Amino acid sequence: MDRLDRPWEELLVLLDTNETKKVREYIGSLRSEDVVRSMSHLKKEDQLKLMGLLTPHDAADIIDDIPDVQAIDIIDDLQTDEAAAILNEMDSDDQVDLLAELDEKDAEAIIEKMEPSEAESVRKLIRYDPETAGGLMISEYLSFNKNNTIGDVIQYLQENSSQLQEYSIKYIYVESKDSFIGVLRMVDLLLSKASTRLSQIVIKDTKTINEYASLNELINFFNAYDFYGVPVVNEHNALVGVVLRKSIMEVEMEKANIELLETQGIIGGEELRSFPVFKRSGRRLSWLSVNIFLNIIAASVIAFYQDTLSSVIALAVFLPIISDMSGCSGNQAVAVSMRELSLDLVRPNEVLRVWFQEIFVGLINGIVLGILIGFAAFLWKGNMYLGLVVGGALTINTMVAVSLGGTIPLMLKRMGIDPALASSPILTTLTDMLGFFLALSFASLALVNISS
Amino acid sequence: MDRLDRPWEELLVLLDTNETKKVREYIGSLRSEDVVRSMSHLKKEDQLKLMGLLTPHDAADIIDDIPDVQAIDIIDDLQTDEAAAILNEMDSDDQVDLLAELDEKDAEAIIEKMEPSEAESVRKLIRYDPETAGGLMISEYLSFNKNNTIGDVIQYLQENSSQLQEYSIKYIYVESKDSFIGVLRMVDLLLSKASTRLSQIVIKDTKTINEYASLNELINFFNAYDFYGVPVVNEHNALVGVVLRKSIMEVEMEKANIELLETQGIIGGEELRSFPVFKRSGRRLSWLSVNIFLNIIAASVIAFYQDTLSSVIALAVFLPIISDMSGCSGNQAVAVSMRELSLDLVRPNEVLRVWFQEIFVGLINGIVLGILIGFAAFLWKGNMYLGLVVGGALTINTMVAVSLGGTIPLMLKRMGIDPALASSPILTTLTDMLGFFLALSFASLALVNISS
Repeated sequence: MDRLDRPWEELLVLLDTNETKKVREYIGSLRSEDVVRSMSHLKKEDQLKLMGLLTPHDAADIIDDIPDVQAIDIIDDLQTDEAAAILNEMDSDDQVDLLAELDEKDAEAIIEKMEPSEAESVRKLIRYDPETAGGLMISEYLSFNKNNTIGDVIQYLQENSSQLQEYSIKYIYVESKDSFIGVLRMVDLLLSKASTRLSQIVIKDTKTINEYASLNELINFFNAYDFYGVPVVNEHNALVGVVLRKSIMEVEMEKANIELLETQGIIGGEELRSFPVFKRSGRRLSWLSVNIFLNIIAASVIAFYQDTLSSVIALAVFLPIISDMSGCSGNQAVAVSMRELSLDLVRPNEVLRVWFQEIFVGLINGIVLGILIGFAAFLWKGNMYLGLVVGGALTINTMVAVSLGGTIPLMLKRMGIDPALASSPILTTLTDMLGFFLALSFASLALVNISS
Repeated sequence: MDRLDRPWEELLVLLDTNETKKVREYIGSLRSEDVVRSMSHLKKEDQLKLMGLLTPHDAADIIDDIPDVQAIDIIDDLQTDEAAAILNEMDSDDQVDLLAELDEKDAEAIIEKMEPSEAESVRKLIRYDPETAGGLMISEYLSFNKNNTIGDVIQYLQENSSQLQEYSIKYIYVESKDSFIGVLRMVDLLLSKASTRLSQIVIKDTKTINEYASLNELINFFNAYDFYGVPVVNEHNALVGVVLRKSIMEVEMEKANIELLETQGIIGGEELRSFPVFKRSGRRLSWLSVNIFLNIIAASVIAFYQDTLSSVIALAVFLPIISDMSGCSGNQAVAVSMRELSLDLVRPNEVLRVWFQEIFVGLINGIVLGILIGFAAFLWKGNMYLGLVVGGALTINTMVAVSLGGTIPLMLKRMGIDPALASSPILTTLTDMLGFFLALSFASLALVNISS
């Protein structure tokens, strides 16, 4: 493998030399994706050492790029003044994201060491719920009084151009005293004379968002309007920040990823393989131990029919198939419901409509799968009754699993339970129980004919 | 329920009246999320009728907002000239996204009816792979020759301000003949005199992206640089378009959603409940029928040990538990690998490293779950050997399932197979087979002591 394939190896060598300049140069020479990948290959102490050797600005870039869980972990373990220096260099919304995840004491200690202006903006932002406009907005925006002229604005921009490099200035916000009036695009400043007052050209019917607006309102807002950002106002219509489209899309993506992990049994947020083994193992077990308990409940149905099963031992082959296939069919319907919920195409109170839409799909697929498995059973043992029992059980169970799978996420959402997390375990427990019950009770009814 | 809870009901009434003005006004009064939800509640013929009654501009807004599969479906069924009129109003990247999904003939028929300038840009864009810079870029950007002055640009902006409303102008691109030179932010136009030539102030070390750059390169680019968009150039360094950060984030989100659906057994893209029942049922069956085949293979291990099983019928209770629990433990590891792959924290060739990181987690969790289930078996039958057989099988199988789950996605990726789709079926087939084999072969070894 060439050097760029494993950049952390050279990085480790350089870290050992303690030569600040060389480390900085090497990090500067890497693409950001290679830096991110290298971080995940470093041990904690090397990560911390690297942060210490870089300029706060470069360290902040890395903290921005790596996964949030890793960033929080590192900030938590850095010296307070090192952490503060790095946070000084970050956008206000990212500062708050990290600090909100620390212990209150640790966060306060870091904030105290930050630059006064940065600390003030953090203190202002951190009191918002992170999934509201206030928690998602940035404080880096430009606002001017309506009585300023275009010339004033241009002069300000010229005098502060170096500081403003880090701002992503797409709009200029216009206020009168403490009240928000409207917005100007940069291009609007070009279309009038320098002596024009902002009040004359400001776009007044600007859409705003309340500081306590929810994430869903923001998602809908950016779906409806093709804006780069939206001004956030408080109840007195004073401008308090700006939410960028980018930030909303990032949060949306993060939530989709957490959901994907939850449906696969990783709970409590992202897991990185750089976490300690016992932390990873413990988090996974917390979900598995609930699941094994549910499994035992479901399997107890089999225990109840032990006598039937020993008379028709062939049935034992089909019980895991019925369990697995019903789970799969049901989970397909769960996935479609989760998707329609997240696209807002269906509301939690439309259980009956979804049930009706799924029952036919479940019936068709149940019949097809039932015939397949029934035929397989018949071929294997040459016993028609075995085929009927197994096929019939799978047909009915698939129909129930699909209609349950479609409706369970809606019902959970309505009850305020996270459907990504709970749908599948609840579904498979119910369908396992029913599937085992159907197969074994059908078999005991047909016992005279089946036990050949 | 109030009117806004089921806006499609009033919409249907209005559609029946055929009064264009009232329908347009009603749609205009709804929030975009209610329009989207209403569309998913309308029958196909009503969707088409609505499109026909709206202005092409309003219809284009709706087509933009609804899920892609639904939009394609509607465009496909509209009259050619209606479809062309709507597409005229859309951004070039969205035009191409839709047209690329139609039959080539249908797409060509629509393109012919579009405005000549729109048609030309579509013809240019549609030849790119949709997951390259060329396929993702827009043609709506402003470029000027380097010999123009700031005054020329401002004059152009003033004269064309109404047309330019629909553009999201954040940068001005500077060219010399057919070669891209650099970029100017709007704010830069404010900082110099009107007589200044663009060549004097253009930012020359502008990052560009080649027209054939992959989606991954674009994702990495926007992770590394905090830009709103990036200019796309061909091999002669001529500017051919602009890729917006927004477009890349949208594609990324779409891919994450498709992946989520695939892991749950919905393949071939999104499924909406407004699809016909047979289409939905057929698509789901295509995945289920592979799965039932794999299930039969796995269960055949049980058939092989039928005699053992009939001597220790209690074991039949535990086989579905072993199958389900190993699947769950393995899928957790699959999820972590999928996530690390998508974050580029791990490369497909690091199979050994991941295996090593997972085997310990698998061992710990295997021991914990094995003790739990073994103890449950012992309590139930008072037979220590049954507990040992069941617990031992689950311990070993969990360890194998977790290490396989971690590595299978990497191996599939390396082979060019979609890991979201194939990881779980392959994993569960292997772990079912091994789990059944372990439990039943241990049992047959311990048969003297176990069959009480």
